Amino acid sequence: MTKRRIMLKVAYDGTAYCGYQIQPNGLSIEEVLNNTLSDFLKEEIKVIGASRTDAGVHSMGNVVVFDTLSKIPGEKFSFAINRFLPEDIVIRESKEVSEDFHPRKNKSFKLYRYRILNDTFNIPMYRNYSYHFYRKLDIENMKKAAGYLIGSHDFTSFCAVNTPVVDKVRNILEIDIKKENNFIDIYVKGEGFLYNMVRIIAGTLIEVGCGHYDALKVKNILEACDRNEAGPTAPARGLTLMEIKYR
Amino acid sequence: MTKRRIMLKVAYDGTAYCGYQIQPNGLSIEEVLNNTLSDFLKEEIKVIGASRTDAGVHSMGNVVVFDTLSKIPGEKFSFAINRFLPEDIVIRESKEVSEDFHPRKNKSFKLYRYRILNDTFNIPMYRNYSYHFYRKLDIENMKKAAGYLIGSHDFTSFCAVNTPVVDKVRNILEIDIKKENNFIDIYVKGEGFLYNMVRIIAGTLIEVGCGHYDALKVKNILEACDRNEAGPTAPARGLTLMEIKYR
Repeated sequence: MTKRRIMLKVAYDGTAYCGYQIQPNGLSIEEVLNNTLSDFLKEEIKVIGASRTDAGVHSMGNVVVFDTLSKIPGEKFSFAINRFLPEDIVIRESKEVSEDFHPRKNKSFKLYRYRILNDTFNIPMYRNYSYHFYRKLDIENMKKAAGYLIGSHDFTSFCAVNTPVVDKVRNILEIDIKKENNFIDIYVKGEGFLYNMVRIIAGTLIEVGCGHYDALKVKNILEACDRNEAGPTAPARGLTLMEIKYR
Repeated sequence: MTKRRIMLKVAYDGTAYCGYQIQPNGLSIEEVLNNTLSDFLKEEIKVIGASRTDAGVHSMGNVVVFDTLSKIPGEKFSFAINRFLPEDIVIRESKEVSEDFHPRKNKSFKLYRYRILNDTFNIPMYRNYSYHFYRKLDIENMKKAAGYLIGSHDFTSFCAVNTPVVDKVRNILEIDIKKENNFIDIYVKGEGFLYNMVRIIAGTLIEVGCGHYDALKVKNILEACDRNEAGPTAPARGLTLMEIKYR
């Protein structure tokens, strides 16, 4: 019997999880998917995920694949599996893909959103889905600073220390900063990201927005190739993986 | 010593509460406010609230008042009290008001929002803050139906049965239905509401939107003065008290 490869687009509220990837202590998205799919399909299923989001980070469409002997049509999996998943994980799309499709190896771009609630007081309904920052942010300066990050650069300054990756050159295609009511959303689109990269970019742009750094400093931070030069890592709860698109 | 009356605008995520009002079984917003204020001010505080929202219903600005001997400036209470409140309750404004100001007796209008996520699948981050309804809704028909509800009417058909209130005439000032991405927001503004009124209006407009009722039926439902004629009570999680404005 030949196995088919099924792709899922998985949305999740990361609040209750230790992240996407299986960890010895704590429940991960990957573990819930493996267990739910294995129970449902009566086969041992091991999903392969595109993005290993951190604890507390959310997703509107992380991409995972798995191989199965099941004959269920690809697009029916979402309906079938959602009935058995906890309510903070939802399959928003499913389809059959070619057996050599690999969520991390196939060329793609990812779109992340970092959401800041910029107001005197927090809003309870958004407390797990945005970072409450009460000092007023100047988004024009943030946009100017973001401009220096576009393109292909060595992002060592924007990568968590002790990351085993050697090549820290990454290509940022777009950074878009939008304000709606009291929310400031930083959208970052790229082909690949280093560990904590979007959260360090957000933390650094917040330093610019509140006047701690001038916009030009971001250019210097980038050139320094030193994590200590950049701003803090903004909290996980503000980050959502919005979309992964394959070429 | 004379007491001063302080007004608070209280935002809360109603998910974990049995509602605004103190209940024998379960934790209420009112109880948390009384306990937190009493502990902080070292006086016995009993708040008076404007709206007794149900279990699971949210608020962006319910209005409460309390009397205190404290000399803290009115506008400082929000900062002081927020440090002691759980993260799902936030005071977004505080000020001193005249001692005869009463949140329920003073003339006001209230604005509610009923949020529907109208998409095939739910979005985990919105699961507690919207009602997921997967069948496609025709918002033009919903708007037409809503038109019949504007103005002063006997809303018996849109009131939970066994409500002890005798006079069921209420005045709806405005119903606005907005679609943004996959969300349909029903905004209802009125001077006062009956028990479950906004949720029954939402449940009825959803019946219109998905084609179970035609728009004109809402006029007949209103005239029937019979709760059995209207649609179901839409789930609490979709409802948020957005604002209370005093004349």
